[in-house]
Amino acid sequence: MTLRFTVSATDGAARRGRLETAHGAIDTPAFMPVGTAATVKAMTPEAVVETGAQIILGNTYHLMLRPSAERVAKLGGLHRFMNWPGPILTDSGGFQVMSLSQLNKVSEAGVSFQSHIDGAKYDLTPERSIEIQHLLDATITMQLDECVKLPADDKRVSEAMQLSLRWAERCKTAFKLRDGYGLFGIVQGGTNGALREQSAKGLIKTGFDGYAVGGLAVGETQAEMFATLDVTTPHLPQDRPRYLMGVGKPSDLVGAVQRGIDMFDCVMPTRSGRNGQAFTRRGTINIRNARHAEDPRPIDEHCRCPACRNYSRAYVHHLVRSDEILGSMLMTAHNLTYYQDVMQGLRAAIAEGRLEAFAAGFHAGEASGDIPPL
Amino acid sequence: MTLRFTVSATDGAARRGRLETAHGAIDTPAFMPVGTAATVKAMTPEAVVETGAQIILGNTYHLMLRPSAERVAKLGGLHRFMNWPGPILTDSGGFQVMSLSQLNKVSEAGVSFQSHIDGAKYDLTPERSIEIQHLLDATITMQLDECVKLPADDKRVSEAMQLSLRWAERCKTAFKLRDGYGLFGIVQGGTNGALREQSAKGLIKTGFDGYAVGGLAVGETQAEMFATLDVTTPHLPQDRPRYLMGVGKPSDLVGAVQRGIDMFDCVMPTRSGRNGQAFTRRGTINIRNARHAEDPRPIDEHCRCPACRNYSRAYVHHLVRSDEILGSMLMTAHNLTYYQDVMQGLRAAIAEGRLEAFAAGFHAGEASGDIPPL
Repeated sequence: MTLRFTVSATDGAARRGRLETAHGAIDTPAFMPVGTAATVKAMTPEAVVETGAQIILGNTYHLMLRPSAERVAKLGGLHRFMNWPGPILTDSGGFQVMSLSQLNKVSEAGVSFQSHIDGAKYDLTPERSIEIQHLLDATITMQLDECVKLPADDKRVSEAMQLSLRWAERCKTAFKLRDGYGLFGIVQGGTNGALREQSAKGLIKTGFDGYAVGGLAVGETQAEMFATLDVTTPHLPQDRPRYLMGVGKPSDLVGAVQRGIDMFDCVMPTRSGRNGQAFTRRGTINIRNARHAEDPRPIDEHCRCPACRNYSRAYVHHLVRSDEILGSMLMTAHNLTYYQDVMQGLRAAIAEGRLEAFAAGFHAGEASGDIPPL
Repeated sequence: MTLRFTVSATDGAARRGRLETAHGAIDTPAFMPVGTAATVKAMTPEAVVETGAQIILGNTYHLMLRPSAERVAKLGGLHRFMNWPGPILTDSGGFQVMSLSQLNKVSEAGVSFQSHIDGAKYDLTPERSIEIQHLLDATITMQLDECVKLPADDKRVSEAMQLSLRWAERCKTAFKLRDGYGLFGIVQGGTNGALREQSAKGLIKTGFDGYAVGGLAVGETQAEMFATLDVTTPHLPQDRPRYLMGVGKPSDLVGAVQRGIDMFDCVMPTRSGRNGQAFTRRGTINIRNARHAEDPRPIDEHCRCPACRNYSRAYVHHLVRSDEILGSMLMTAHNLTYYQDVMQGLRAAIAEGRLEAFAAGFHAGEASGDIPPL
């Protein structure tokens, strides 16, 4: 294995670990902010580091269209291009091809599609996805997979899972080994436990540096997602990191960590932040709401982020209502900081064997609701 | 006088000075970034300080509509609201009422208008403008004036100038004296030297802490603007700061400083920055241009700003083309830093009696044009 992963503590199914890469170490469980187009929206890299994030995610689909993998390579790779020297995980492009592009068509060879930006035609094969991620200099590369929207019948889900397994093998063959770099396989199979088991076993046979759980966060309930994790993570190797793709709300992270997940990514803290939704220790609030218009208190009095240290709810309310860029900047910084604090809390709780109590406290906080108006 | 102003050096008509206020000192000649709606767009206050700015401008028109002066006052004033402890100059609201609002109507009493946001009706009198700026806790308050669009006939320009003089007296009466706070009068009169002289003399008779030159940067050429300054600044007191409102391009600043101006504000570095125009030591460039797409060099190799220290033209080009918020953040930081460096250069040159050589070097740099493509 080219990525060293050590589990230093467990608490039930949850694991406290450390993943060492060519671009630095990642304490797990970890949340990866999404930097779609070579930028975590509305954040400087310095501000992302301040939130506590140790790794970010880049989107192959967006980057291959603009500025293109070849251009990023020419400019020294994604780390240098965007001034983020730390680890970067890139997805395979498959998920966004299927959700964002026009006229996409899946075949045994790969996916053909038209760019949502200018309609240009592209082919994305497993080999090309690996090549693009290599050109980007991704620390962690993801296999190309086919992700079906749920609900879907078992036949359709099984076909996509089988295709993804064949693509996984082709990705493994195409991936160039380098010390401190790794390739993750992706478990598919929808909410069907037997298919998930079959997918996991197939991937393990091929052998990957880490195992992702894909095909979730596509419309199913939290209970369905947790149930799927319950029948999936037991089939994954103990000594390799597990990554739940595209998840999720803070309570999703807590529940998934309790089910043995080590890594997450989601646009929720960044995208919702820009739309005025703040995640706090007392649940979510919409800063656009009139009740915040004259509230001199911070979004979350226990938060260490710049928005909470330096500004009132009233000010952030004003900025977001006025469509000011600083509103997006402060809300994003807040949400990413809160997410990282949840992860830090989970890591400490696992290390100290008190995860159940931590989770109970977390849920009690969310249930308590926002502070009363003044 | 409640604002202490000292001129430590002169070079021709240019002055190197220092204005001391309740919220800190300002080295002049000074450029004030525009913070329209209680934020310098796309910048944290910390980032604004890093550019070298010592004072910012707030827009009374925008703030009175949203979040309202009364609300800002309730939240501790504009400094606290937006976390900018330094000096703030607010305009009177008059200019934007006449350019942005609907159905505005000027009378002896003041201006009536409808908000461009929700159509609500407002009256802005000289007394109300002063009251609003007091509620905002403006360090420097501007008189309400009537600003006519050029070209206009002398009769129309004269009437507006006379009305502005009568409003100036009412503003002086309404202004509450506080140590370290000041009120500026505004010289009007279009490009007519006799009217400018009449306006200046009328204002001096009333007596202000500083004198602004208004009614320029409204469509006239640079030559007309400079000619107007040539017939205006000689009529202004030597011992009070002079502020050229709404100006301008870097070469406007250099020429106006040579004509005895001490303070400036303009949206150009911030607004043009968000649109992709970068000001550099070799003139302006449009970062959206395809020639920058693979250029690994910074926007301006002599610039100390975060954009130039940490990123390539290629990256900023990508961000701006992709409408990424970080593109606006970096371009704004660059332009404001460049403006502050021009001001710093002017101040040092005046102090050392080499302003003419500095200006010649500045113009030679602008004329040299951008670095050749690689």
